[in-house]
Amino acid sequence: MATTSLSISETCAAAKRASRELAALSSEVRDGALCAIADALIAHTSEILEANARDLEAGEAAGLSDALLDRLALDERRVAAMARGARTIASLPDPVGEVIDGSTLPNGLTKRRVRVPLGVIAVIYEARPNVTIDAAALCLKSGNAVVLRGSSSAMHSNAVLAAVAERAAAQAGLPAGALALVAGGGREELAELATQTGVVDLIIPRGGEGLKAALKGVATIPVIYAASGNNHVFVDASADPRDALAIALNAKLQRPGTCNAAEKLLVHAEVAGTFLPDALAALSAAGVRLHGDARARDAAPGVEMDVATSEDWDTEYLAPEMAVAVVDSLADAIEHVNAHGSGHSEAIVTASTASARAFQLGIDAACVYVNASTRFTDGGEFGMGAEIGNSTQKLHARGPIGLRELCTFKYLVEGSGHIRA
Amino acid sequence: MATTSLSISETCAAAKRASRELAALSSEVRDGALCAIADALIAHTSEILEANARDLEAGEAAGLSDALLDRLALDERRVAAMARGARTIASLPDPVGEVIDGSTLPNGLTKRRVRVPLGVIAVIYEARPNVTIDAAALCLKSGNAVVLRGSSSAMHSNAVLAAVAERAAAQAGLPAGALALVAGGGREELAELATQTGVVDLIIPRGGEGLKAALKGVATIPVIYAASGNNHVFVDASADPRDALAIALNAKLQRPGTCNAAEKLLVHAEVAGTFLPDALAALSAAGVRLHGDARARDAAPGVEMDVATSEDWDTEYLAPEMAVAVVDSLADAIEHVNAHGSGHSEAIVTASTASARAFQLGIDAACVYVNASTRFTDGGEFGMGAEIGNSTQKLHARGPIGLRELCTFKYLVEGSGHIRA
Repeated sequence: MATTSLSISETCAAAKRASRELAALSSEVRDGALCAIADALIAHTSEILEANARDLEAGEAAGLSDALLDRLALDERRVAAMARGARTIASLPDPVGEVIDGSTLPNGLTKRRVRVPLGVIAVIYEARPNVTIDAAALCLKSGNAVVLRGSSSAMHSNAVLAAVAERAAAQAGLPAGALALVAGGGREELAELATQTGVVDLIIPRGGEGLKAALKGVATIPVIYAASGNNHVFVDASADPRDALAIALNAKLQRPGTCNAAEKLLVHAEVAGTFLPDALAALSAAGVRLHGDARARDAAPGVEMDVATSEDWDTEYLAPEMAVAVVDSLADAIEHVNAHGSGHSEAIVTASTASARAFQLGIDAACVYVNASTRFTDGGEFGMGAEIGNSTQKLHARGPIGLRELCTFKYLVEGSGHIRA
Repeated sequence: MATTSLSISETCAAAKRASRELAALSSEVRDGALCAIADALIAHTSEILEANARDLEAGEAAGLSDALLDRLALDERRVAAMARGARTIASLPDPVGEVIDGSTLPNGLTKRRVRVPLGVIAVIYEARPNVTIDAAALCLKSGNAVVLRGSSSAMHSNAVLAAVAERAAAQAGLPAGALALVAGGGREELAELATQTGVVDLIIPRGGEGLKAALKGVATIPVIYAASGNNHVFVDASADPRDALAIALNAKLQRPGTCNAAEKLLVHAEVAGTFLPDALAALSAAGVRLHGDARARDAAPGVEMDVATSEDWDTEYLAPEMAVAVVDSLADAIEHVNAHGSGHSEAIVTASTASARAFQLGIDAACVYVNASTRFTDGGEFGMGAEIGNSTQKLHARGPIGLRELCTFKYLVEGSGHIRA
């Protein structure tokens, strides 16, 4: 595979050259390449599964947990899902070339702000080999060259997936270097990749806190960190109790391991006595381990509940586990959320338009929900088609990181010999 | 002055608290505060000029250059200009609350992406005391709390300006802490300010390369660096020679010390022989010191010109000085610009729609001009009303950093008990 014989900086430089050509290609060619990648994945399924078997064997020998081995494992169905994913991304509207806004200036100059690719995006990811195809498809669709760095545990799978995709993309007319996998799982290689100033335009880590921490120490190029979510559901005094319970159950349990799951339940003191006994019993019966403050425990003495510690309010459980607090007012709820939330997804259940407005205005988070589950924070649910993660930072990308967020823009200004007076 | 008695982290924490209230204030209150600041500046002119006299005295004693002393000096006219600037910013459209886009999702959820303040913005600046008011007005207008850190050479002026503005803002209904000046010009204080993670949302340095370098080493919070511009004017084969000369002269000379001035002239080989003799004679006669490559020097043997070194192509002169090269094609021009430009403002002069399109597509820069001077890259010229600098980074802000770029957004999602299936 050609890509692994180059050094990291050579690979990135080649990606930079490719990015100049990529930015000028029509969406027809880019979409065609994604479909060609999908076809090639299907055609090379057995080769991919063979490589995957070697990774699984090595993983078993190294004593990886069953959960990690499952994340690593591919089969025909999973390969087909990757191909389908690439085709879905190909079918999305092209973000490149979109005119964001524009005007004719008083002096007659026309000015347009046009969405363009960032250039080169590096994606660093762990375990799941399907990210190889997913990340590549999102970056190429948005006109970016992509440099991939997977985990060593999936090295054989990733190498074959990247080689198959690279070959298919080149045959479909993408420039050489537009898609590359870099080898080397060490800290030094990570640092080399994360310091390609002027060459790599953005680095996106998709992995655990260890990876993020490692990057934070060394990166000199822009990073968008996929975020964790310490999310709250606030049940206002006027909330419909059935809606409130349904939303709390859904936000907590529909998929507890995700960043948009709720971790906290806040209840207005006025309804704590009526709402909490049934609600906490239902959450407990559904298998949620509860941590309650004094008033929550008092309100539902029949429900098994731990004493919530101050640490609980800042903890993302990513599990069927939830901390519950009673607050005296909407203002207190907002203050609690802004103090402890991670700025991801926050929900209020209320019948009051005034409370809804105040919550929307007061909460400092990427996504603020009124009478809906936090679980909707998702590129697919938001109609963005696909995402590469969720951002809780405030600059550039906030919320789902979709195709648009993988782009920048430039101002195109046209005149007829205009000079400044 | 209350602000200086707090530590940097206390000042930032107070700004954070203020930012929560600021984000919920109507534009009427924020605009009223800017007008109140303008009135107060006029009312306190003599106090401001007294403080400025102390800075000038200290500056003279310290042997500051005449240029620096001029930048430092205030008089009635300059104070009035500051007040006028604040009123102009107050009159701009409010970026806060603008619905950027939105839709009703297939499941009936309504989703809006709404522009909101970033929170707390720290502005670090050098010499000119007017930045105190200018930066404060832009930040407050966009609903942000602002922490200012000026240079020690303007400490008395800045202290009075900030105190006058702070008092006026508070009387007009802005929360305490919304505007604060921090003292301490040392590296340690800079580092403390630049590491207020979760408190200060953005730091904007307005100063020289030394300040930027100092920040790059220590900042853990997002920074937008006001950019330098190594900008090019490319004269295509089909260019109208009069337009080309007028644009080159304007881009170089209308204000040579600015980041949007042109530093390089590239000329298509087909017209080098006809265009360059007159054009370079005119630039030279206008006082521009020229550095030419071999072909440029050959084309205009009668014009005094230095031999352009490889360093010249990467140098921003910020002076009446320009390097000139002959290129064989539009593609070579694009490659040269992308290799040496700083991604700020790039112009082509051409009569060919095909060349214009290719240049717009191929150039990787914040602002790409067709038949117009690079000098138009400016918040005011772009109809953004005002700016706090120009960005050549690709994430979040690219080009003029106006009110919109001092904001982030959040998704507001409304349902009627929606849960995810």
